[in-house]
Amino acid sequence: MQSFQRVDELIDAELDALLTEAAAAALPVSGQDVSIYDLMRYHLGRLDESLTRPARANPGKRVRPKLCLAACEAAGGDAAIALPIAAAIELLHNFTLIHDDIQDESRTRRGRSTVWHIWGAAQAINAGDAMFAVAQLGVQRLRERGVAAEPALDLTRELNQTTLRIVEGQTLDLAFEQREVVTVDEYLSMIHGKTAAIIGFAAWAGATLAGADAARADAYRAFGLSLGLGFQIQDDLLGIWGAPEVTGKSAADDIRRGKKSFPILRLIERADAADRRTLRALYAEGALAESEVEIVLALLDHYVIQPIVETEVQRRHDEAQRLLDSLAIEPAQRASLEGYVAELAQRSA
Amino acid sequence: MQSFQRVDELIDAELDALLTEAAAAALPVSGQDVSIYDLMRYHLGRLDESLTRPARANPGKRVRPKLCLAACEAAGGDAAIALPIAAAIELLHNFTLIHDDIQDESRTRRGRSTVWHIWGAAQAINAGDAMFAVAQLGVQRLRERGVAAEPALDLTRELNQTTLRIVEGQTLDLAFEQREVVTVDEYLSMIHGKTAAIIGFAAWAGATLAGADAARADAYRAFGLSLGLGFQIQDDLLGIWGAPEVTGKSAADDIRRGKKSFPILRLIERADAADRRTLRALYAEGALAESEVEIVLALLDHYVIQPIVETEVQRRHDEAQRLLDSLAIEPAQRASLEGYVAELAQRSA
Repeated sequence: MQSFQRVDELIDAELDALLTEAAAAALPVSGQDVSIYDLMRYHLGRLDESLTRPARANPGKRVRPKLCLAACEAAGGDAAIALPIAAAIELLHNFTLIHDDIQDESRTRRGRSTVWHIWGAAQAINAGDAMFAVAQLGVQRLRERGVAAEPALDLTRELNQTTLRIVEGQTLDLAFEQREVVTVDEYLSMIHGKTAAIIGFAAWAGATLAGADAARADAYRAFGLSLGLGFQIQDDLLGIWGAPEVTGKSAADDIRRGKKSFPILRLIERADAADRRTLRALYAEGALAESEVEIVLALLDHYVIQPIVETEVQRRHDEAQRLLDSLAIEPAQRASLEGYVAELAQRSA
Repeated sequence: MQSFQRVDELIDAELDALLTEAAAAALPVSGQDVSIYDLMRYHLGRLDESLTRPARANPGKRVRPKLCLAACEAAGGDAAIALPIAAAIELLHNFTLIHDDIQDESRTRRGRSTVWHIWGAAQAINAGDAMFAVAQLGVQRLRERGVAAEPALDLTRELNQTTLRIVEGQTLDLAFEQREVVTVDEYLSMIHGKTAAIIGFAAWAGATLAGADAARADAYRAFGLSLGLGFQIQDDLLGIWGAPEVTGKSAADDIRRGKKSFPILRLIERADAADRRTLRALYAEGALAESEVEIVLALLDHYVIQPIVETEVQRRHDEAQRLLDSLAIEPAQRASLEGYVAELAQRSA
């Protein structure tokens, strides 16, 4: 890996190579039909809606593949070897996003129409399924880079175990929408699967490809899990109190959309019986009106929930920092991992 | 493998073991939420709709896993070693069925309600995604049975390549529904992906696990592909002219449902301009009324399509037979593979 400044381009190139390689043996598609590979390229921001022109779309922050590469370097490896698995992780994440958008009926993502919204749910199911299969083929590209078969198979196992955690988390998330009562612990378990597991996997995979032994790779995973939980709780915090110029959403957006996120669950837990009844009634309906948003914001204030949530983010920050310290990485190699930890301190401020 | 009579039980046991192993690390699920593993067990006919009681449901014919085991034995291997990949193939097939049922809005399968019809499309998407991940873990169980890492990785590659062919086929199938004109060649390419690829893979995987070299395993795959194409064209034949007591469907069912299956595409190709216009008009609307079904049946008769389709099945039968002969398998080991070829001769009679 020549320079981390070029990392987005390297990830793009690896994603393109993976998709091109996978498409090489594809069934012929006539000009009048849609190619599943082009739908995947659209979702990844590589093609625009015409599917004939390149897009200059926001590909997202790519926290997961970048963390994988950073963990590989921190563990003393050459990040170039980890590129195929970094790309696989990005594809795994995006496969779940394509399906999530169908499940949540989300019409836009990263400022563009979602795949199902343009091409229908049926083809979007196909695009997600195909992207999951292409992600698996990322492991095959490791073999070409000299990674031995046994660790490649271990990576395959963990990639699929991670997928199961993500799907279990998503299954719980959907189930919680049907419920009147969800506890904070249940919520934390859900985001552990839906959000944190893949970040833990990214760190584990990078360290494993650098040759770390099982115990050390597991410590990297624990570091990633702390980061992941911290990021999600911080997202929940910003979804209510984040400045619109930082989040790109209007203030209190999560309240308006009726999301029972971490702050709301803590509030329900802390509120007295009367306020709890009020909250349950407000959240029984889905979206909230502006006057209802004001009521929730006032209750969050009254029960001093924001500092409680900030403390939860800080806890994950401190835990991630402690785990990082325990790895005793050379200062030169640990800068980018420190950066992820620092993000948890800055964004919650 | 003790006896092929017990093969359904062996496949059940392997499927149960795979699901139980995959669920061992799952996030906790409270009694009020649905477990994604139970949804998978429901689809596989292992649990009834209550998700608390075992079902005695028709699991399907299991052509794919059985062919994999038969190919392994025919190639001189111990079929017991192939059980994890046979189960993985059955899961791969069923993951695509769960998603197909959503895409086609099918409310029943094998005489039971489909997953999406009971638990909604969102959770059915999850059940399919999770089943695909569990299928991948089947390859891990090969390692425990002493299969070396290199062939296990080759199996992983082919499993995912096969998935891409299936999804490409399904993508085309959906695209064809939007089209006025579909050629017979395009249709054959589509069913090559959607139906035949996994049957070719099953035969290839069985032979590979028996230690067959690449050329020989490829010959097994070609045999499976012929079988698969033959089965699909035969299904299309039975969907129009099959006796209801054999197919379990009413006569001419595929016509009634407006399916542009192989016989219909051949008919459109052979019909004169006026009849072609009639057919295009009838098939533009989806389902057909009884009087319209009669028109199509009369046209199929007029252009003598049934013998043409029978000849197409016979061609795949002969090709499969020739490929099987070229493999020069010991008579004792080739009986079950012969059985698959014979099915193509019998069912089209």
